[in-house]
Amino acid sequence: MALIVAKFGGTSVASPERIQMVAKRLIAIKQAGDDVVAVVSAMGKTTDELVGLARAISKNPPKRELDRLLSTGEQVSMTLLAMAIEASGYRAMSFTGRQAGIQTDTDHSKAKITLIHADRIITAVKAGVIPVVAGFQGIDQNGDITTLGRGGSDTTAVAVAYGIGADVCEIYSDVDGVYTADPRVAPRARKLDQISYEDMLELSGAGAGVLQSRAVEFARKYNVVIHSRSAFSDAPGTLIKEADSSMEQAVISGIAHDTSEVKLTIRHVPDMPGIAARVFSALAGNSVNVDMIIQNISEDDFTDITFTCPEDDLERAEEVIQGSLERIGGRDYVVDTNIAKVSVVGTGMKSSPGVAAKAFQALAASDVNIQLISTSPIRLSVVISGDQVDLAVRSLHTAFDLDSDKVFEETMLSAEELEAKKNKGR
Amino acid sequence: MALIVAKFGGTSVASPERIQMVAKRLIAIKQAGDDVVAVVSAMGKTTDELVGLARAISKNPPKRELDRLLSTGEQVSMTLLAMAIEASGYRAMSFTGRQAGIQTDTDHSKAKITLIHADRIITAVKAGVIPVVAGFQGIDQNGDITTLGRGGSDTTAVAVAYGIGADVCEIYSDVDGVYTADPRVAPRARKLDQISYEDMLELSGAGAGVLQSRAVEFARKYNVVIHSRSAFSDAPGTLIKEADSSMEQAVISGIAHDTSEVKLTIRHVPDMPGIAARVFSALAGNSVNVDMIIQNISEDDFTDITFTCPEDDLERAEEVIQGSLERIGGRDYVVDTNIAKVSVVGTGMKSSPGVAAKAFQALAASDVNIQLISTSPIRLSVVISGDQVDLAVRSLHTAFDLDSDKVFEETMLSAEELEAKKNKGR
Repeated sequence: MALIVAKFGGTSVASPERIQMVAKRLIAIKQAGDDVVAVVSAMGKTTDELVGLARAISKNPPKRELDRLLSTGEQVSMTLLAMAIEASGYRAMSFTGRQAGIQTDTDHSKAKITLIHADRIITAVKAGVIPVVAGFQGIDQNGDITTLGRGGSDTTAVAVAYGIGADVCEIYSDVDGVYTADPRVAPRARKLDQISYEDMLELSGAGAGVLQSRAVEFARKYNVVIHSRSAFSDAPGTLIKEADSSMEQAVISGIAHDTSEVKLTIRHVPDMPGIAARVFSALAGNSVNVDMIIQNISEDDFTDITFTCPEDDLERAEEVIQGSLERIGGRDYVVDTNIAKVSVVGTGMKSSPGVAAKAFQALAASDVNIQLISTSPIRLSVVISGDQVDLAVRSLHTAFDLDSDKVFEETMLSAEELEAKKNKGR
Repeated sequence: MALIVAKFGGTSVASPERIQMVAKRLIAIKQAGDDVVAVVSAMGKTTDELVGLARAISKNPPKRELDRLLSTGEQVSMTLLAMAIEASGYRAMSFTGRQAGIQTDTDHSKAKITLIHADRIITAVKAGVIPVVAGFQGIDQNGDITTLGRGGSDTTAVAVAYGIGADVCEIYSDVDGVYTADPRVAPRARKLDQISYEDMLELSGAGAGVLQSRAVEFARKYNVVIHSRSAFSDAPGTLIKEADSSMEQAVISGIAHDTSEVKLTIRHVPDMPGIAARVFSALAGNSVNVDMIIQNISEDDFTDITFTCPEDDLERAEEVIQGSLERIGGRDYVVDTNIAKVSVVGTGMKSSPGVAAKAFQALAASDVNIQLISTSPIRLSVVISGDQVDLAVRSLHTAFDLDSDKVFEETMLSAEELEAKKNKGR
């Protein structure tokens, strides 16, 4: 008999009908003889709608109030799910973050979990009840509700799994696991049976959207096994866990890509110490998340500074550069929004030299020009033209022997699933 | 410097724009040098929508979960109002029922307030903050959220006013006070400057919708002065308070009418002891709220039993009668949905004989036939044909010298206010 945490995202609880499907799933786990604790996100686009209401009233709403407002979204879905379970003849009980004993720091809208005190959940499970916990929220030392930010519900699920000593934290979503690449881009992508925390973190950081990095980090820290699987099928998904010997055979776990970044180049900047520091501390101070940085070789004591950042941060980044261009002596700057980052990820890289060489050869063979390169011990990322992203992913996928015999067809997804993919919430 | 509780209903907070209007109103009170605590209902039809979601999932949702679900409505409006106040440069802080210290019994969906422990609100007021309290909800001894049922937000406001020792509990709505009759029916109706708790209770019970009886009862018990006034104008409304000498001059406070009831007659029932008891205990057992009862004079040892009940209870009432008709020996039953109850209310009745005679004369002069009569020490109610309700109200209004010189015009209400009147929530 296992103890399972099952987390369902906003798409899975977007309507009363879907909530009833989730209830059926939870009851099936119960009927199989296991105990289960559910964690839910807010229904569909509820959170966005609540944010919209707040913004209609205030440009800069007080964060205590905003967190309280947003936390109602999960309180609606959790009560409805509890009702659906009870309507099927099983016992259920909903728990807010506070009731679930999820304590956080006071950093409203991006609070970090500091402690989980899950006695009430454990008591409920022992009494035969299916507890339904509101994701995304906790309570701080002042007794105020906090929210955990994007990906918060996955993190709640992992924290609850740790707090109650669950055997596994199942994260249900509209994808059926972790693939060696995005199957819509690389139709020969394979679903992985398992992947190490490290590789998963690199893949998430490099653009694979299946799991939030933060939840994976939490799981790694407390050694919680995550099972990423489909909300629409019973097929097993991918286990994310500590690397074991069987995992080490694969050099490369997967190819990730990310088209949400933009590239900025500040041109003709004096090549003097402190210039880059000035630019990047100004960017950091304005909450621009700089990803990759490259500085060209100096010519006549002038250089170009290039960096990438999320498209969402572009406006702020341009303001910063515009404001500091004169001060740093730069000539002008250019923006390129048509870029993509493609990453090769694998713990096996550490003990297997030649990965970079193989990747560059594969890209060259496909006439893909590399604009920027960055590496970590288990990841190699290149920035290329946005038009070539599919080609690059496929070339690398083939070059690293990841191709499956079976070809993934986009038509395997229903229209609803495709829509759901697009609307995927937190 | 006064301490004021200001309660705003669902219509007043139905959109971000209206919430900003409410914020302005609260700030105006602050600027006038008074302290204010706001109490809010859920936005517009939120509560009905949440009930709809629950019903889509379960015919009989667990009440603990339903209360938790419904309580989110006020948590949304309270945070938005707090944001709107803060956006205008004043300090505000929202309080759930729990945070406001509103303790209730465990009777989910119609909980009664057992205690109010308003220290946090008082502290906030002293710190210059405008507290915004969620109406309609409290917390029971198990730490679970309860809701107070219909009219709950008015009751919350009165309870908070009592708990913090406020000078007055202002209840803002889409009507500008208590009238001697519904101005849409009796255009010469006058707005009352003040009315006693007793008369207000009888008027509310007899169909005047301006205030919930329950809140008035609470106010009477703890001697909280209520000020019923318009959310759309600054004009003073009506004070509801302990009767004082100036009130005693008017014999009649007002004429109320109610068209939401139906009349049922069980015909040809044996005139034996215990028959009526059997019928009405069966009706009570099936939650049919019987209002007036009349039993005709016996003919040949058979009689007719007539009663009225809310139209919403008609289906249940018919089931009960159908099921017991044979057992009690009745022949059949008839339903009349085209009825109206018209009531003459006034504490002064007690010391002024002849009210009934005058009322009957006035109705007779207008050719209004009386079907049923019931009385209390300060109220006389008659059931008449639904077609004659306007005529009856106007005749009585004139007969008891309540007519104003000014004629109320329906056009004084904007289309929005008329719509709002129709949709008036809890």
